[in-house]
Amino acid sequence: MKILVVKFGGTSVGNLERIENASKRVIQKLKEGYRVVVVSSAMSGETDRLINLAKQVDPMPPERELDMLISTGEQQAIALFAMTLQKLGVPSVSLCGWQVPVLTDDVHTKARVKRIVVQKLKNLLEEGYTPVVAGFQGVTESGEITTLGRGGSDLSAVALAYALGADCEIYTDVEGVFTADPRIVPNSKKIPVISYEEMLEMASLGAKVMQARSIEFAMKHRVRIHVRSSFSDSDGTWIVPEEEVMEKSVVRAITLDRNESRITVVRVPDRPGIAYSIFKALGDAHIVVDMIVQNVSHQGYTDMSFTVNRSETSKAEQIVKKVAQEIGAQEVVRDDRIAKVSVVGIGMRSSYGTAAKMFEVLYKNGINIMAISTSEIKISCLIEDKYGELALRELHSAFIEEGEEVKVVNES
Amino acid sequence: MKILVVKFGGTSVGNLERIENASKRVIQKLKEGYRVVVVSSAMSGETDRLINLAKQVDPMPPERELDMLISTGEQQAIALFAMTLQKLGVPSVSLCGWQVPVLTDDVHTKARVKRIVVQKLKNLLEEGYTPVVAGFQGVTESGEITTLGRGGSDLSAVALAYALGADCEIYTDVEGVFTADPRIVPNSKKIPVISYEEMLEMASLGAKVMQARSIEFAMKHRVRIHVRSSFSDSDGTWIVPEEEVMEKSVVRAITLDRNESRITVVRVPDRPGIAYSIFKALGDAHIVVDMIVQNVSHQGYTDMSFTVNRSETSKAEQIVKKVAQEIGAQEVVRDDRIAKVSVVGIGMRSSYGTAAKMFEVLYKNGINIMAISTSEIKISCLIEDKYGELALRELHSAFIEEGEEVKVVNES
Repeated sequence: MKILVVKFGGTSVGNLERIENASKRVIQKLKEGYRVVVVSSAMSGETDRLINLAKQVDPMPPERELDMLISTGEQQAIALFAMTLQKLGVPSVSLCGWQVPVLTDDVHTKARVKRIVVQKLKNLLEEGYTPVVAGFQGVTESGEITTLGRGGSDLSAVALAYALGADCEIYTDVEGVFTADPRIVPNSKKIPVISYEEMLEMASLGAKVMQARSIEFAMKHRVRIHVRSSFSDSDGTWIVPEEEVMEKSVVRAITLDRNESRITVVRVPDRPGIAYSIFKALGDAHIVVDMIVQNVSHQGYTDMSFTVNRSETSKAEQIVKKVAQEIGAQEVVRDDRIAKVSVVGIGMRSSYGTAAKMFEVLYKNGINIMAISTSEIKISCLIEDKYGELALRELHSAFIEEGEEVKVVNES
Repeated sequence: MKILVVKFGGTSVGNLERIENASKRVIQKLKEGYRVVVVSSAMSGETDRLINLAKQVDPMPPERELDMLISTGEQQAIALFAMTLQKLGVPSVSLCGWQVPVLTDDVHTKARVKRIVVQKLKNLLEEGYTPVVAGFQGVTESGEITTLGRGGSDLSAVALAYALGADCEIYTDVEGVFTADPRIVPNSKKIPVISYEEMLEMASLGAKVMQARSIEFAMKHRVRIHVRSSFSDSDGTWIVPEEEVMEKSVVRAITLDRNESRITVVRVPDRPGIAYSIFKALGDAHIVVDMIVQNVSHQGYTDMSFTVNRSETSKAEQIVKKVAQEIGAQEVVRDDRIAKVSVVGIGMRSSYGTAAKMFEVLYKNGINIMAISTSEIKISCLIEDKYGELALRELHSAFIEEGEEVKVVNES
């Protein structure tokens, strides 16, 4: 039995016409000989509508009840999806997370999948049914409804694919993963095959195609993912283990992230334990800090900068101001007008000169670098926001359009 | 532990403000010393919206999927209700039908409750929680979501009250049960206490306060019900076992039902088996026939009339036309302009003259009686629809306002 898990996002099931369109894609897969398990998100807008209702009751609604409320969005979508499949002649049943069951821990609104029982799904597939499973939701061992947090439906699909030993197709509203955001870089190209590692870096760097946690899960369990558009027939992007990526570009893609802010603690007394005081306080508040820069000390004082996600800037600023006072720093300065531009590619591991070339491109365009961070397969530079699009286009031109990168062909 | 089941209908939870109002009623009951189990319908309009969506997919949507879809209405309402209670300081958890569980048979869209497991509810009550249970929905032994059909939330409440050994309060948008429809009879009065038998007759006769099946269940299991308005503080109507009704009016109430049609099979050959042919065919099609009248035979032919609910008239007409042809009847005539007026009261069992008085009132107002049917505790007359309101007012005046009825006071 050749099984395929096929996941549709909110816009792909945004109205009844689109659900019918999605159903026809499922039928195409059935014709290709697959047994298909469908995973569906809520119809676009529904989850936000429900969260908004809850916030009218209580700005911080109790999370167990929030899960109870918002899980209805997917439940409605899967029922309509299964009805549509049946109308088109395909035997189908919808299943909530608790009916599969998709077992999770009990951390409401951001539960982790612990275990998926696949016997029921397998029986349904063997009986000729096409099950439609609610994404984003699960159930605890004690029967409480949970949701998996942002991007949870992708995670549901990848986890089900793993549990069923299947590949996973993610239908979304973009054509796949691109070498850069096509709205900014018209010359950007669709990437046919990309490694988990690269995709993971890109997700962390602001590419919105898939959430990092789904890719992490896929990487850990080696689930092959095909991300493609539900509005087009062309192939999208395969996300696969590194050894399956034949063409190892030094730079696979360029990303631009405008969702960070920089916070600078000015004139910090330079003595042991100061950095700890600041970042311990932020960690305790569950704030994720990205790039950290500490300048060389002058006369016993230094400046310390870091970036955080825009949504957490105010919270971080508040916390750091308090710490700054305690440690005798002069002031705390916040800057929202920053952007992070990055080059990503697994080929970077076995090549050199990429950083130098990146800095050269920025320098030649008069762009000042405010901070740098690197991993094995990416280099990120913090720059002024107003240069963001220019930097993205110029880096794309230099690294990808001009095709100067060293290509390592996998011979095995 | 003094437990009370409190049920709110769709208009009582129609928006967040009303849910807050309903929550305050729950808090009042908690202050009176009850442990409360809340049962909630979907917010008004939501179930219809979902059914409409399903019908856009398929005019006859598959019933399993329809249950999956429409059960989300109650799930949303209970989550918002539990959030509101928590905001007001009352520890609360919402529970879907499958979480209680409310176990049903597997007849989707009109399932019957088989068994309610109350241990979880009792534990929650003992721990100080106020559980909010989704009405209208249940689950089969094999984990399929079912719904209980029209009036299902009332049934959920009554069944839970039975299972918990509790009384049941039904909050709705009317003040209680009246001696006649107050929109037609301004002098009608709220009935403080009524027997199951009377209430059951009234429900069958078009009074819309509660569905017959909930009352049947309450009668069978002797659950005491208090029907009252969620928009008023005054007492409503208690529906209780007959022996608890102190004042046994001969006529408790007058009802008017304008939701029937009459079908007449004209010039039927009068021979054995003819009635069987007609009503067997209707029974096979699950059509409920109400009043049946067969005239005296003339020259081997007779006319046969019966009434059915307006929603099934066309279907019944079609079936009967086919049978009429087979048995050699002349034609089938349909009349939608009819009304059924009824007097109801348990005191009727031990008194006489009620029928004569009813016929007299109709006669004096120039109203012709087209058919009569009786039970131990009611008399119904079929009349022309245009006289419906007149008949209701005149009968109310004669039997209830003038207070002529024999009153039997229960001495025990």
